[in-house]
Amino acid sequence: MQMGLIGLGKMGNNMRTRLDQAGIEVVGYDTNPAVSDVADLNELAARLTAPRTVWVMVPAGEITDSVITQLKGVLDAGDLVIDGGNSRFTEDFKHSADLAEKGIDFVDAGVSGGVWGLKNGYGLMVGGSNEQIERVMPIFDALRPEGPRAEGFVHVGEVGAGHYAKMVHNGIEYALMQAYGEGYELLDARSDIIKDVTGTFKAWQRGTVVRSWLLELLVRALEEDPEFENIEGYVADSGEGRWTIEEAIDHAVPVPTISASIFARFVSRQEQSPAMKAVAALRQQFGGHATKPSADG
Amino acid sequence: MQMGLIGLGKMGNNMRTRLDQAGIEVVGYDTNPAVSDVADLNELAARLTAPRTVWVMVPAGEITDSVITQLKGVLDAGDLVIDGGNSRFTEDFKHSADLAEKGIDFVDAGVSGGVWGLKNGYGLMVGGSNEQIERVMPIFDALRPEGPRAEGFVHVGEVGAGHYAKMVHNGIEYALMQAYGEGYELLDARSDIIKDVTGTFKAWQRGTVVRSWLLELLVRALEEDPEFENIEGYVADSGEGRWTIEEAIDHAVPVPTISASIFARFVSRQEQSPAMKAVAALRQQFGGHATKPSADG
Amino acid sequence: MQMGLIGLGKMGNNMRTRLDQAGIEVVGYDTNPAVSDVADLNELAARLTAPRTVWVMVPAGEITDSVITQLKGVLDAGDLVIDGGNSRFTEDFKHSADLAEKGIDFVDAGVSGGVWGLKNGYGLMVGGSNEQIERVMPIFDALRPEGPRAEGFVHVGEVGAGHYAKMVHNGIEYALMQAYGEGYELLDARSDIIKDVTGTFKAWQRGTVVRSWLLELLVRALEEDPEFENIEGYVADSGEGRWTIEEAIDHAVPVPTISASIFARFVSRQEQSPAMKAVAALRQQFGGHATKPSADG
Amino acid sequence: MQMGLIGLGKMGNNMRTRLDQAGIEVVGYDTNPAVSDVADLNELAARLTAPRTVWVMVPAGEITDSVITQLKGVLDAGDLVIDGGNSRFTEDFKHSADLAEKGIDFVDAGVSGGVWGLKNGYGLMVGGSNEQIERVMPIFDALRPEGPRAEGFVHVGEVGAGHYAKMVHNGIEYALMQAYGEGYELLDARSDIIKDVTGTFKAWQRGTVVRSWLLELLVRALEEDPEFENIEGYVADSGEGRWTIEEAIDHAVPVPTISASIFARFVSRQEQSPAMKAVAALRQQFGGHATKPSADG
Repeated sequence: MQMGLIGLGKMGNNMRTRLDQAGIEVVGYDTNPAVSDVADLNELAARLTAPRTVWVMVPAGEITDSVITQLKGVLDAGDLVIDGGNSRFTEDFKHSADLAEKGIDFVDAGVSGGVWGLKNGYGLMVGGSNEQIERVMPIFDALRPEGPRAEGFVHVGEVGAGHYAKMVHNGIEYALMQAYGEGYELLDARSDIIKDVTGTFKAWQRGTVVRSWLLELLVRALEEDPEFENIEGYVADSGEGRWTIEEAIDHAVPVPTISASIFARFVSRQEQSPAMKAVAALRQQFGGHATKPSADG
Repeated sequence: MQMGLIGLGKMGNNMRTRLDQAGIEVVGYDTNPAVSDVADLNELAARLTAPRTVWVMVPAGEITDSVITQLKGVLDAGDLVIDGGNSRFTEDFKHSADLAEKGIDFVDAGVSGGVWGLKNGYGLMVGGSNEQIERVMPIFDALRPEGPRAEGFVHVGEVGAGHYAKMVHNGIEYALMQAYGEGYELLDARSDIIKDVTGTFKAWQRGTVVRSWLLELLVRALEEDPEFENIEGYVADSGEGRWTIEEAIDHAVPVPTISASIFARFVSRQEQSPAMKAVAALRQQFGGHATKPSADG
Repeated sequence: MQMGLIGLGKMGNNMRTRLDQAGIEVVGYDTNPAVSDVADLNELAARLTAPRTVWVMVPAGEITDSVITQLKGVLDAGDLVIDGGNSRFTEDFKHSADLAEKGIDFVDAGVSGGVWGLKNGYGLMVGGSNEQIERVMPIFDALRPEGPRAEGFVHVGEVGAGHYAKMVHNGIEYALMQAYGEGYELLDARSDIIKDVTGTFKAWQRGTVVRSWLLELLVRALEEDPEFENIEGYVADSGEGRWTIEEAIDHAVPVPTISASIFARFVSRQEQSPAMKAVAALRQQFGGHATKPSADG
Repeated sequence: MQMGLIGLGKMGNNMRTRLDQAGIEVVGYDTNPAVSDVADLNELAARLTAPRTVWVMVPAGEITDSVITQLKGVLDAGDLVIDGGNSRFTEDFKHSADLAEKGIDFVDAGVSGGVWGLKNGYGLMVGGSNEQIERVMPIFDALRPEGPRAEGFVHVGEVGAGHYAKMVHNGIEYALMQAYGEGYELLDARSDIIKDVTGTFKAWQRGTVVRSWLLELLVRALEEDPEFENIEGYVADSGEGRWTIEEAIDHAVPVPTISASIFARFVSRQEQSPAMKAVAALRQQFGGHATKPSADG
């Protein structure tokens, strides 16, 4: 089998390795000519035998938009584009409709696994028709983890469903991370009692209710830097957590832990919180002009 | 009428002024001899005609404990002690039982109003028997705001009820402050749209649903320092907010906004959040060794 | 002065009364012919002398869209449309641009006060140019509360700013309401201690830190129905709370209390929570097949 | 090796099986004579050779208190008691001091794993001196999961540390469960998009960031009852989640996701929310006497 792959960053490159290992011929394109197999998308299209399959693995938003628009120009009816990036599921409807104008098929694929995917395989959630998914199944089988297909791959629904599922996955992920973070802080706060924080997390890896892959990563992190001396408590967030909240709001789904985990990230990036300035100012107003701890109402 | 008043800090002193204005004779005691009318509690007791009334206005916890123990020593059966500090309501049960051993009555009084109480009067929530409350009603009438008694004073229940009500009052207060803080930050975040943040809060003072005394204080604060340039986003918290959460937990009462407002204060005082260090470390583990914004999941 | 008013429901009708009282001639239109002064918008336009001012007071979204489209058809260059409904501020940009094509001015007005506005006046937050606002200032002065203009009216910024401020106002409002609700539940949970819940809220009306208009309304509600026997714990939410969260998410503003108050409303409307079914199912899986309270972990 | 085991419910009985399999002789006592090896604690003490080891596996609180008091009566200096129940860590200090009066040693053991512990082994977190832990290590080795000792067992610190770690473990557990619950509801809310909810969770088991043991349990639960038709969204909570919040409050640790997960459980058990009744009443007050969705602000 043969396919195009657009975007050869760390993630794209790792995926290429897995695809290579599975005997799938990959023609790669990247804006960085040093890693690209072809000069441009025209050459990419020319190098692939129709009906072509092209996997897009570039940042969500404008770049994905632009790549898909260009692919519409160089591909033909019967070709198939897979968006494996972190696009918002609502974008899939647009991209699918756009490509359909020229008879080009579209499949969306949510991909989880980070840098570990190279070794462990990638968890895949895909959206499209049965026929479309079947056609590119060898690619998904190459990328997904070893073991039963159903434990690392799911055909979630029609187009958009894959990215919707990935969005929810990431929302859950945020809350899981925050939960372990709070647990860490609770252990860390009682160094008078807890003499082995790393050992405690380590011991949770087997038999306990909280065992998970994230827990294993936390153990790794603590073994590398037991006091997190080289880590700033500054946490970025990507679009998917935010979209999860927006979806929740649109459909009246209460998501207190997912939203709390997003807000904790927002706060982590603030030098000064305007909200807390206002609260401090209020406290000063009713409690007297010194901001003494005893001043509350 | 005549009474003792222990604790002549800002709050105690302001209360003394209102009591004086109402014609109540106050014998004050403070550990600071410069402001104290008497040398010690023995002299305080000697200066008051039995049956005596003594208002305790000192920091909650050990200091209140100590003062009440000392009062038990110098007062007689039939005297009455009012704890007007911010004691936990569970302490009232202890203090009441302790004083009862010697036949001394006990009333707890939650007092709200901060530095404005001098001018506006203090909102009062009191606990005790009908007879006890009636006996010291002139004091409460002197301290409470002008207007109908029922709009600034309440006999909430037996001993402890006053401080319980004050605790809940402060829990609500925390959440109200946080709500305005979040609103401030939302206005502040869109300086491209909102050209008059102070004016917006100012305009909410009449006619709107969010008008309140805290809103008026926020307007004052903004008029003094429209960008909060001289305010740190660092907010202390007193015991009452914490006790509110503990009570909620004990009685299975969901308090998402009150707890969120406490947690926001906790975070405001952290240089670095251990929890967010753990989250950042996790993110680094699965997303690659750089903490790039695009690394999620 | 003369103006058109579209939408004569409870809110529109109350506003009309205030406008009448201020000597402003109102030509009203409503789809209900029984309350409408004119048969259609053509007749409305005909009855007003150019340059006309028309206030739109209809439900946000499609109905407002439709009315503004129709007004574009019947009004002329130099006329001015005010949208006083609860439109999303982003809609204002669209409506303003649309009307501008024909030289019609547009002003957005956030209006607060509910049914009390008739008596108390309406809190107003408006967006538009200085010239536009000045032109319709008599209308705002008629609607706003007595007292200094700046305490019930604000020109927040260019078009959209009025509805943005109103959106934030409502976000704050949600959190304030939830805060009092939590406080109510905390008092209600300890009927062994708190013997007068209504009296406690009533006493908070003067002197305390938590005094507010919402508190006064809560006292009214409790005096009508002290146990809330005739009230379901079912709370709707309008668009503005949701938009507040979405704005917060878009601009990385942490809004834990506002989001908690929205989620509490979502939960209040669920017969059964799918999330809690999943949690119960998980608990059953690890704790044994009976869902016994002691099964955790 | 030989030991006593008090409490032969489901958990105790499963533990006994693992201990038997490891060749440890267990003399069991339970208030249910049908499953008890001995008539009372006197007989239990008589059947064990000094220095004795007795594992207590009964409900936390009064029952544990009572059993430990009784053990103090029947055991001798040099014996050792292990509390493997879900006691609050602060109780350990009391129990330890109490037994020490008679020279009896005390070790606290947090035990995780639920009904799965029989097969998988139990995650263990223990507190005590090095000497004490070493002495009963064969018991811990019999109970803990296969694999490296450090991945299923930790000596956390002095007495109390084991239960502290278990408490934090359960706090994290609550938030993890809630996170998956929210994710489930988000998938369930879009049945127009998500055509295979069970399959989606199933596919997350390998390769994804959210894979965990709880996820596997959720897949099991969904495979048994894909729509959760036989599950009520009613979730109990045990002491440990609550104590986690109280510890957090005492040490100023922000725990927004753990608290949100507890509050969600509280709400799940309410027929009617008093807080939401108050919010509904407020909404009615300012929006007019019908509780129409459009009434806000």
